Amino acid sequence: MILDGTERLGFLLHDAARLMRKRFETRASGYGLSAAQWRLLVRLVKDEGVAQARLAELLEIEPISVSRLLDRMEEGGWIERRQDANDRRVRMIFPTAKSRDAFAEVKSMAGEVYEEALAGLPAPIRRATIEGLTAIVNNLSEADTPACGGGGVSKDKVA
Amino acid sequence: MILDGTERLGFLLHDAARLMRKRFETRASGYGLSAAQWRLLVRLVKDEGVAQARLAELLEIEPISVSRLLDRMEEGGWIERRQDANDRRVRMIFPTAKSRDAFAEVKSMAGEVYEEALAGLPAPIRRATIEGLTAIVNNLSEADTPACGGGGVSKDKVA
Repeated sequence: MILDGTERLGFLLHDAARLMRKRFETRASGYGLSAAQWRLLVRLVKDEGVAQARLAELLEIEPISVSRLLDRMEEGGWIERRQDANDRRVRMIFPTAKSRDAFAEVKSMAGEVYEEALAGLPAPIRRATIEGLTAIVNNLSEADTPACGGGGVSKDKVA
Repeated sequence: MILDGTERLGFLLHDAARLMRKRFETRASGYGLSAAQWRLLVRLVKDEGVAQARLAELLEIEPISVSRLLDRMEEGGWIERRQDANDRRVRMIFPTAKSRDAFAEVKSMAGEVYEEALAGLPAPIRRATIEGLTAIVNNLSEADTPACGGGGVSKDKVA
């Protein structure tokens, strides 16, 4: 069964995101971090101090799995947990200097992966794709009610 | 830390795909299928007869979890397992008539979700977004070596 045009939008988004993760993880595998740990780290460098519960939601993994993942990454010196001063039940997660250094190296690698992904596309189509994706994220964030407290809507907005 | 332009590409893809899945699952929740079961069903209607191992890869879940998911869906009359005539070790998965009927209903709902996702975007930007996503899937599929046998590359190509 062949779906075409915008009827394929959901599949295209899912497959593009999946293939991007896979390509990225293959390249970044030299750092002694698992794919799941990398995904968490990259998210953390973007959203420093994000609440542990929100991190589980963003990564679409169970809160208990995030907790175990963070335990191992804390032992490895990749992350720090701090209590929110306003709400002691909330655990905020920060990347360490070691994480930031690794991320800086990986960032230039990420640029190469994006270039591979967009190969052959003229600049106006690239810009329109980014514009389209940004609109999708904003449109779908509007009525998006996060499972945890802390400001899900604004975190999904692309700054 | 704010990333902009194509530097955000990975995050945009991940977030857009995640929000789309979430919106879709909320709408489809009335059919007595879990989110994971829905995701599997939609994939199956697109890729009828896909090998069980490939399904695990496409859905990014462990082969053992796919197997359990399929057990429950077989009991519920949603899917059928058949042996590949050429390789008896390969289990091919097919949707049942019940699945196809449910999918047909859900398809018009999916159209509404896509419309919400693309709200406010002019037609040329929509077309360019689909073109960009299609190129990303094709570009990243090229050196994509699937974990299982059966033709991963062609399955990732958008027909």
